[in-house]
Amino acid sequence: MSRLATLPLETFAATLASDAPAPGGGSAAAAGGAMAAGLLAMVVKLTLGKEKYKEAWEELTPLGDRLDDARVRLLELIDEDTKAFDGVLAARRLPKETDAEKAARRKALDEANLLATTVPMQTAFFAHEALKAAPAVLEKGNPNAASDAWAGALAAWAAVLAALANVRINLPSVADPELHRGFREDADAMEKAAGEALEKTRALAKSRGLLA
Amino acid sequence: MSRLATLPLETFAATLASDAPAPGGGSAAAAGGAMAAGLLAMVVKLTLGKEKYKEAWEELTPLGDRLDDARVRLLELIDEDTKAFDGVLAARRLPKETDAEKAARRKALDEANLLATTVPMQTAFFAHEALKAAPAVLEKGNPNAASDAWAGALAAWAAVLAALANVRINLPSVADPELHRGFREDADAMEKAAGEALEKTRALAKSRGLLA
Repeated sequence: MSRLATLPLETFAATLASDAPAPGGGSAAAAGGAMAAGLLAMVVKLTLGKEKYKEAWEELTPLGDRLDDARVRLLELIDEDTKAFDGVLAARRLPKETDAEKAARRKALDEANLLATTVPMQTAFFAHEALKAAPAVLEKGNPNAASDAWAGALAAWAAVLAALANVRINLPSVADPELHRGFREDADAMEKAAGEALEKTRALAKSRGLLA
Repeated sequence: MSRLATLPLETFAATLASDAPAPGGGSAAAAGGAMAAGLLAMVVKLTLGKEKYKEAWEELTPLGDRLDDARVRLLELIDEDTKAFDGVLAARRLPKETDAEKAARRKALDEANLLATTVPMQTAFFAHEALKAAPAVLEKGNPNAASDAWAGALAAWAAVLAALANVRINLPSVADPELHRGFREDADAMEKAAGEALEKTRALAKSRGLLA
Protein backbone atom coordinates (compact mmCIF):
# COMPACT_ATOMS: atom_id res chain seq x y z
CA MET A 1 0.00 0.00 0.00
CA SER A 2 1.26 3.48 -0.76
CA ARG A 3 1.79 5.78 2.19
CA LEU A 4 -1.38 7.48 3.47
CA ALA A 5 0.47 10.81 3.73
CA THR A 6 0.88 10.76 -0.06
CA LEU A 7 -2.89 10.58 -0.61
CA PRO A 8 -4.59 13.77 -1.78
CA LEU A 9 -6.31 15.50 1.14
CA GLU A 10 -9.77 14.85 -0.34
CA THR A 11 -8.99 11.16 -0.90
CA PHE A 12 -7.75 10.79 2.67
CA ALA A 13 -10.95 12.41 3.98
CA ALA A 14 -13.06 10.11 1.75
CA THR A 15 -11.06 7.10 2.96
CA LEU A 16 -11.80 8.07 6.56
CA ALA A 17 -15.49 8.36 5.62
CA SER A 18 -15.64 4.87 4.09
CA ASP A 19 -16.98 1.85 5.96
CA ALA A 20 -13.46 0.45 6.40
CA PRO A 21 -12.50 0.74 10.09
CA ALA A 22 -8.96 1.89 9.20
CA PRO A 23 -7.66 4.52 8.71
CA GLY A 24 -9.62 5.87 11.68
CA GLY A 25 -9.25 8.24 14.61
CA GLY A 26 -5.62 7.39 15.33
CA SER A 27 -4.42 8.17 11.80
CA ALA A 28 -6.66 11.24 11.61
CA ALA A 29 -5.17 12.46 14.92
CA ALA A 30 -1.68 12.14 13.45
CA ALA A 31 -2.78 14.01 10.30
CA GLY A 32 -4.43 16.75 12.35
CA GLY A 33 -1.35 16.99 14.55
CA ALA A 34 0.87 17.37 11.46
CA MET A 35 -1.29 20.25 10.20
CA ALA A 36 -1.17 21.84 13.65
CA ALA A 37 2.63 21.62 13.77
CA GLY A 38 2.70 23.07 10.24
CA LEU A 39 0.55 26.07 11.21
CA LEU A 40 2.63 26.84 14.28
CA ALA A 41 5.86 26.50 12.27
CA MET A 42 4.46 28.97 9.72
CA VAL A 43 3.89 31.55 12.47
CA VAL A 44 7.49 31.04 13.65
CA LYS A 45 8.78 31.58 10.09
CA LEU A 46 6.61 34.70 9.65
CA THR A 47 8.30 36.01 12.82
CA LEU A 48 11.92 35.07 12.13
CA GLY A 49 11.89 36.82 8.78
CA LYS A 50 10.86 40.22 10.23
CA GLU A 51 13.32 42.64 11.90
CA LYS A 52 10.33 44.10 13.78
CA TYR A 53 9.93 40.94 15.87
CA LYS A 54 13.68 40.46 16.49
CA GLU A 55 13.20 40.15 20.25
CA ALA A 56 11.30 36.88 19.76
CA TRP A 57 13.87 35.24 17.47
CA GLU A 58 15.99 33.61 20.16
CA GLU A 59 13.04 31.93 21.85
CA LEU A 60 11.17 30.96 18.68
CA THR A 61 14.05 29.62 16.55
CA PRO A 62 14.44 26.29 18.42
CA LEU A 63 10.63 25.94 18.59
CA GLY A 64 10.48 26.19 14.80
CA ASP A 65 12.94 23.31 14.44
CA ARG A 66 11.00 21.21 16.94
CA LEU A 67 7.73 21.91 15.13
CA ASP A 68 9.21 20.85 11.79
CA ASP A 69 10.47 17.61 13.36
CA ALA A 70 7.08 16.96 14.98
CA ARG A 71 5.30 17.46 11.64
CA VAL A 72 7.55 14.96 9.84
CA ARG A 73 7.15 12.38 12.63
CA LEU A 74 3.35 12.84 12.78
CA LEU A 75 3.07 12.28 9.03
CA GLU A 76 4.84 8.93 9.49
CA LEU A 77 2.53 8.04 12.37
CA ILE A 78 -0.53 8.30 10.08
CA ASP A 79 0.63 5.05 8.45
CA GLU A 80 2.03 3.48 11.59
CA ASP A 81 -1.36 3.77 13.28
CA THR A 82 -3.26 2.11 10.45
CA LYS A 83 -0.60 -0.64 10.20
CA ALA A 84 -0.78 -1.25 13.96
CA PHE A 85 -4.58 -1.56 13.75
CA ASP A 86 -4.31 -3.97 10.81
CA GLY A 87 -1.76 -5.95 12.82
CA VAL A 88 -4.27 -6.51 15.61
CA LEU A 89 -6.89 -7.73 13.11
CA ALA A 90 -4.36 -10.07 11.48
CA ALA A 91 -3.35 -11.53 14.87
CA ARG A 92 -7.01 -12.09 15.77
CA ARG A 93 -7.45 -14.11 12.57
CA LEU A 94 -4.61 -16.52 13.39
CA PRO A 95 -5.66 -20.18 13.86
CA LYS A 96 -6.43 -21.30 17.43
CA GLU A 97 -7.09 -25.05 17.14
CA THR A 98 -4.06 -26.64 18.79
CA ASP A 99 -2.31 -25.54 22.00
CA ALA A 100 0.73 -24.49 19.96
CA GLU A 101 -1.48 -22.35 17.69
CA LYS A 102 -3.20 -20.80 20.69
CA ALA A 103 0.15 -19.90 22.27
CA ALA A 104 1.46 -18.43 19.01
CA ARG A 105 -1.75 -16.44 18.54
CA ARG A 106 -1.59 -15.14 22.14
CA LYS A 107 1.99 -13.99 21.60
CA ALA A 108 1.16 -12.32 18.27
CA LEU A 109 -1.87 -10.60 19.82
CA ASP A 110 0.15 -9.31 22.78
CA GLU A 111 2.75 -7.85 20.44
CA ALA A 112 0.15 -6.34 18.12
CA ASN A 113 -1.80 -4.81 21.01
CA LEU A 114 1.36 -3.35 22.48
CA LEU A 115 2.21 -1.71 19.15
CA ALA A 116 -1.39 -0.43 18.79
CA THR A 117 -0.92 1.31 22.16
CA THR A 118 2.63 2.57 21.61
CA VAL A 119 1.84 4.20 18.26
CA PRO A 120 -1.00 6.49 19.46
CA MET A 121 1.13 7.29 22.54
CA GLN A 122 3.76 8.62 20.13
CA THR A 123 1.13 10.54 18.19
CA ALA A 124 -0.02 12.12 21.46
CA PHE A 125 3.60 12.92 22.35
CA PHE A 126 4.41 14.75 19.11
CA ALA A 127 1.07 16.56 18.94
CA HIS A 128 1.76 17.63 22.53
CA GLU A 129 5.21 18.86 21.43
CA ALA A 130 3.43 21.13 18.95
CA LEU A 131 0.86 22.22 21.54
CA LYS A 132 3.57 23.07 24.09
CA ALA A 133 5.06 25.56 21.61
CA ALA A 134 1.71 27.31 21.05
CA PRO A 135 1.64 29.74 24.02
CA ALA A 136 5.07 31.22 23.17
CA VAL A 137 4.30 31.25 19.43
CA LEU A 138 1.02 33.10 20.00
CA GLU A 139 2.42 35.49 22.61
CA LYS A 140 5.74 36.37 20.97
CA GLY A 141 5.12 35.56 17.31
CA ASN A 142 3.97 37.80 14.45
CA PRO A 143 0.64 39.23 15.69
CA ASN A 144 -0.79 39.18 12.17
CA ALA A 145 -0.67 35.39 12.37
CA ALA A 146 -2.16 35.09 15.87
CA SER A 147 -5.27 33.31 14.55
CA ASP A 148 -3.02 30.75 12.82
CA ALA A 149 -1.20 30.05 16.09
CA TRP A 150 -4.54 29.63 17.87
CA ALA A 151 -5.82 27.33 15.09
CA GLY A 152 -2.62 25.30 15.49
CA ALA A 153 -3.12 25.02 19.26
CA LEU A 154 -6.73 23.88 18.82
CA ALA A 155 -5.84 21.21 16.25
CA ALA A 156 -2.86 20.03 18.33
CA TRP A 157 -5.00 19.67 21.48
CA ALA A 158 -7.67 17.76 19.52
CA ALA A 159 -4.94 15.47 18.17
CA VAL A 160 -3.48 14.80 21.65
CA LEU A 161 -6.88 13.89 23.10
CA ALA A 162 -7.90 11.75 20.13
CA ALA A 163 -4.57 9.88 20.26
CA LEU A 164 -4.91 9.33 24.02
CA ALA A 165 -8.42 7.92 23.47
CA ASN A 166 -6.79 5.37 21.18
CA VAL A 167 -4.23 4.55 23.87
CA ARG A 168 -7.07 4.02 26.36
CA ILE A 169 -9.15 1.71 24.16
CA ASN A 170 -6.11 -0.50 23.61
CA LEU A 171 -5.06 -0.54 27.26
CA PRO A 172 -7.31 -3.44 28.36
CA SER A 173 -5.44 -5.59 25.82
CA VAL A 174 -2.00 -4.80 27.23
CA ALA A 175 -1.31 -7.90 29.33
CA ASP A 176 1.81 -6.80 31.24
CA PRO A 177 0.59 -5.00 34.40
CA GLU A 178 3.68 -2.75 34.66
CA LEU A 179 3.31 -1.61 31.04
CA HIS A 180 -0.43 -1.19 31.53
CA ARG A 181 0.06 1.05 34.56
CA GLY A 182 2.85 3.03 32.87
CA PHE A 183 0.72 3.78 29.81
CA ARG A 184 -2.25 4.77 31.95
CA GLU A 185 -0.19 7.14 34.08
CA ASP A 186 1.49 8.67 31.02
CA ALA A 187 -1.88 9.15 29.31
CA ASP A 188 -3.40 10.79 32.42
CA ALA A 189 -0.42 13.13 32.81
CA MET A 190 -0.40 14.10 29.13
CA GLU A 191 -4.15 14.75 29.07
CA LYS A 192 -3.71 17.11 32.03
CA ALA A 193 -0.69 18.89 30.55
CA ALA A 194 -2.46 19.30 27.21
CA GLY A 195 -5.48 20.84 28.91
CA GLU A 196 -3.24 23.32 30.71
CA ALA A 197 -1.38 24.29 27.53
CA LEU A 198 -4.68 24.80 25.69
CA GLU A 199 -6.00 26.93 28.56
CA LYS A 200 -2.88 29.10 28.52
CA THR A 201 -3.15 29.59 24.77
CA ARG A 202 -6.88 30.23 25.03
CA ALA A 203 -6.29 33.09 27.49
CA LEU A 204 -3.80 34.66 25.06
CA ALA A 205 -6.20 34.13 22.13
CA LYS A 206 -9.01 35.75 24.10
CA SER A 207 -6.85 38.80 24.86
CA ARG A 208 -6.32 39.14 21.08
CA GLY A 209 -10.06 39.05 20.41
CA LEU A 210 -10.03 35.59 18.81
CA LEU A 211 -12.71 34.26 21.17
CA ALA A 212 -15.98 35.61 22.54
CA MET B 1 -3.35 26.95 -9.14
CA SER B 2 -4.54 23.40 -8.64
CA ARG B 3 -7.04 22.79 -5.84
CA LEU B 4 -5.48 22.50 -2.38
CA ALA B 5 -7.68 19.47 -1.61
CA THR B 6 -5.85 17.58 -4.39
CA LEU B 7 -2.46 18.10 -2.70
CA PRO B 8 -0.97 15.09 -0.94
CA LEU B 9 -1.52 15.34 2.82
CA GLU B 10 2.23 15.74 3.47
CA THR B 11 2.54 18.48 0.85
CA PHE B 12 -0.43 20.34 2.33
CA ALA B 13 1.15 20.14 5.81
CA ALA B 14 4.49 21.37 4.39
CA THR B 15 2.70 24.20 2.57
CA LEU B 16 1.11 25.26 5.86
CA ALA B 17 4.58 25.17 7.47
CA SER B 18 6.13 27.42 4.82
CA ASP B 19 6.66 31.15 5.33
CA ALA B 20 3.81 31.98 2.94
CA PRO B 21 0.88 33.39 4.98
CA ALA B 22 -1.66 31.37 2.96
CA PRO B 23 -2.86 28.67 3.21
CA GLY B 24 -3.20 29.31 6.94
CA GLY B 25 -5.54 28.65 9.83
CA GLY B 26 -8.73 29.11 7.82
CA SER B 27 -7.83 26.50 5.21
CA ALA B 28 -6.42 24.17 7.88
CA ALA B 29 -9.70 24.51 9.81
CA ALA B 30 -11.64 23.46 6.71
CA ALA B 31 -9.28 20.51 6.16
CA GLY B 32 -9.58 19.46 9.80
CA GLY B 33 -13.36 19.82 9.63
CA ALA B 34 -13.46 17.61 6.51
CA MET B 35 -11.48 14.89 8.31
CA ALA B 36 -13.79 15.21 11.33
CA ALA B 37 -16.89 14.80 9.15
CA GLY B 38 -15.19 11.82 7.49
CA LEU B 39 -14.50 10.10 10.82
CA LEU B 40 -18.06 10.60 12.06
CA ALA B 41 -19.47 9.36 8.73
CA MET B 42 -17.32 6.23 9.06
CA VAL B 43 -18.84 5.47 12.46
CA VAL B 44 -22.33 5.88 10.95
CA LYS B 45 -21.44 3.47 8.14
CA LEU B 46 -19.98 0.94 10.61
CA THR B 47 -23.35 1.10 12.40
CA LEU B 48 -25.73 0.95 9.43
CA GLY B 49 -24.09 -2.20 8.10
CA LYS B 50 -24.67 -4.21 11.29
CA GLU B 51 -27.99 -5.85 12.22
CA LYS B 52 -26.90 -5.69 15.87
CA TYR B 53 -27.23 -1.89 15.91
CA LYS B 54 -30.52 -1.80 13.97
CA GLU B 55 -32.21 0.39 16.58
CA ALA B 56 -29.85 3.26 15.72
CA TRP B 57 -30.35 3.11 11.94
CA GLU B 58 -33.32 5.48 11.73
CA GLU B 59 -31.59 8.23 13.70
CA LEU B 60 -28.12 7.82 12.17
CA THR B 61 -29.03 7.43 8.48
CA PRO B 62 -29.85 11.13 7.87
CA LEU B 63 -26.81 12.15 9.95
CA GLY B 64 -24.58 10.10 7.64
CA ASP B 65 -25.88 11.98 4.61
CA ARG B 66 -25.38 15.32 6.32
CA LEU B 67 -21.83 14.38 7.32
CA ASP B 68 -20.96 13.39 3.74
CA ASP B 69 -22.33 16.72 2.48
CA ALA B 70 -20.40 18.64 5.14
CA ARG B 71 -17.16 16.87 4.19
CA VAL B 72 -17.54 17.74 0.50
CA ARG B 73 -18.35 21.37 1.30
CA LEU B 74 -15.46 21.70 3.76
CA LEU B 75 -13.02 20.38 1.17
CA GLU B 76 -14.15 23.18 -1.18
CA LEU B 77 -13.75 25.73 1.60
CA ILE B 78 -10.03 24.89 1.94
CA ASP B 79 -9.51 26.67 -1.39
CA GLU B 80 -12.15 29.31 -0.89
CA ASP B 81 -10.42 30.48 2.31
CA THR B 82 -7.01 30.83 0.69
CA LYS B 83 -8.56 32.61 -2.34
CA ALA B 84 -10.43 35.01 -0.07
CA PHE B 85 -7.20 35.81 1.79
CA ASP B 86 -5.35 36.38 -1.48
CA GLY B 87 -8.23 38.63 -2.58
CA VAL B 88 -7.69 40.91 0.42
CA LEU B 89 -3.97 41.15 -0.35
CA ALA B 90 -4.71 41.93 -4.02
CA ALA B 91 -7.19 44.67 -3.07
CA ARG B 92 -4.64 46.22 -0.68
CA ARG B 93 -2.15 46.44 -3.54
CA LEU B 94 -4.53 48.42 -5.79
CA PRO B 95 -3.35 51.98 -6.68
CA LYS B 96 -4.56 54.79 -4.42
CA GLU B 97 -3.22 57.96 -6.06
CA THR B 98 -6.36 59.60 -7.45
CA ASP B 99 -9.75 59.95 -5.79
CA ALA B 100 -11.23 57.54 -8.36
CA GLU B 101 -8.52 54.99 -7.57
CA LYS B 102 -9.09 55.43 -3.86
CA ALA B 103 -12.83 54.85 -4.25
CA ALA B 104 -12.30 51.78 -6.44
CA ARG B 105 -9.75 50.38 -3.96
CA ARG B 106 -12.12 51.02 -1.03
CA LYS B 107 -14.91 49.16 -2.82
CA ALA B 108 -12.63 46.24 -3.75
CA LEU B 109 -11.34 46.05 -0.16
CA ASP B 110 -14.86 46.06 1.29
CA GLU B 111 -15.88 43.22 -1.00
CA ALA B 112 -12.70 41.24 -0.33
CA ASN B 113 -13.01 41.68 3.45
CA LEU B 114 -16.64 40.64 3.35
CA LEU B 115 -15.70 37.45 1.48
CA ALA B 116 -12.81 36.80 3.90
CA THR B 117 -15.38 36.88 6.73
CA THR B 118 -18.15 34.93 4.97
CA VAL B 119 -15.88 32.04 4.00
CA PRO B 120 -14.65 31.14 7.53
CA MET B 121 -18.25 31.61 8.76
CA GLN B 122 -19.24 28.86 6.32
CA THR B 123 -16.32 26.70 7.48
CA ALA B 124 -17.50 27.16 11.06
CA PHE B 125 -21.07 26.30 10.00
CA PHE B 126 -20.21 23.01 8.30
CA ALA B 127 -17.70 21.95 10.97
CA HIS B 128 -20.48 22.67 13.48
CA GLU B 129 -22.85 20.50 11.41
CA ALA B 130 -20.37 17.64 11.88
CA LEU B 131 -19.96 18.41 15.59
CA LYS B 132 -23.73 18.49 16.17
CA ALA B 133 -23.95 14.89 14.91
CA ALA B 134 -21.22 13.68 17.29
CA PRO B 135 -23.24 13.07 20.49
CA ALA B 136 -25.77 10.82 18.71
CA VAL B 137 -23.04 9.08 16.69
CA LEU B 138 -21.03 8.34 19.83
CA GLU B 139 -24.04 7.35 21.94
CA LYS B 140 -25.95 5.23 19.42
CA GLY B 141 -23.23 4.23 16.95
CA ASN B 142 -21.08 1.10 16.80
CA PRO B 143 -19.33 1.03 20.20
CA ASN B 144 -16.17 -0.43 18.65
CA ALA B 145 -15.75 2.90 16.85
CA ALA B 146 -16.46 5.13 19.87
CA SER B 147 -12.92 6.52 19.88
CA ASP B 148 -13.32 7.48 16.21
CA ALA B 149 -16.53 9.39 17.00
CA TRP B 150 -14.76 11.18 19.87
CA ALA B 151 -11.77 11.98 17.61
CA GLY B 152 -14.24 13.40 15.07
CA ALA B 153 -15.92 15.56 17.70
CA LEU B 154 -12.56 16.92 18.90
CA ALA B 155 -11.38 17.79 15.39
CA ALA B 156 -14.76 19.33 14.48
CA TRP B 157 -14.76 21.53 17.61
CA ALA B 158 -11.17 22.65 16.89
CA ALA B 159 -12.23 23.50 13.32
CA VAL B 160 -15.26 25.53 14.47
CA LEU B 161 -13.20 27.60 16.91
CA ALA B 162 -10.33 28.14 14.45
CA ALA B 163 -12.77 29.24 11.75
CA LEU B 164 -14.54 31.61 14.15
CA ALA B 165 -11.16 33.14 15.07
CA ASN B 166 -10.76 33.91 11.38
CA VAL B 167 -14.20 35.51 11.32
CA ARG B 168 -13.24 37.66 14.31
CA ILE B 169 -9.93 38.90 12.90
CA ASN B 170 -11.70 40.01 9.72
CA LEU B 171 -14.63 41.65 11.53
CA PRO B 172 -12.95 45.06 12.09
CA SER B 173 -12.65 45.34 8.30
CA VAL B 174 -16.37 44.77 7.69
CA ALA B 175 -17.60 48.33 7.18
CA ASP B 176 -21.39 47.79 7.20
CA PRO B 177 -22.50 48.03 10.87
CA GLU B 178 -25.49 45.71 10.40
CA LEU B 179 -23.36 43.01 8.79
CA HIS B 180 -20.69 43.53 11.41
CA ARG B 181 -23.15 43.03 14.24
CA GLY B 182 -24.77 40.04 12.54
CA PHE B 183 -21.45 38.25 12.08
CA ARG B 184 -20.42 38.93 15.67
CA GLU B 185 -23.68 37.62 17.08
CA ASP B 186 -23.56 34.54 14.85
CA ALA B 187 -19.96 33.86 15.86
CA ASP B 188 -20.75 34.24 19.58
CA ALA B 189 -23.77 31.92 19.32
CA MET B 190 -21.88 29.28 17.35
CA GLU B 191 -18.92 29.32 19.74
CA LYS B 192 -21.32 28.70 22.61
CA ALA B 193 -23.23 25.93 20.80
CA ALA B 194 -19.97 24.25 19.78
CA GLY B 195 -18.76 24.28 23.38
CA GLU B 196 -22.00 22.66 24.53
CA ALA B 197 -21.87 19.96 21.83
CA LEU B 198 -18.25 19.16 22.74
CA GLU B 199 -19.15 18.98 26.44
CA LYS B 200 -22.03 16.60 25.71
CA THR B 201 -19.76 14.38 23.62
CA ARG B 202 -17.00 14.57 26.23
CA ALA B 203 -19.35 13.25 28.92
CA LEU B 204 -20.25 10.30 26.68
CA ALA B 205 -16.57 9.70 25.84
CA LYS B 206 -15.70 9.74 29.53
CA SER B 207 -18.38 7.15 30.29
CA ARG B 208 -16.73 4.92 27.66
CA GLY B 209 -13.32 5.28 29.29
CA LEU B 210 -11.85 7.46 26.53
CA LEU B 211 -10.79 10.20 28.96
CA ALA B 212 -9.15 10.26 32.37
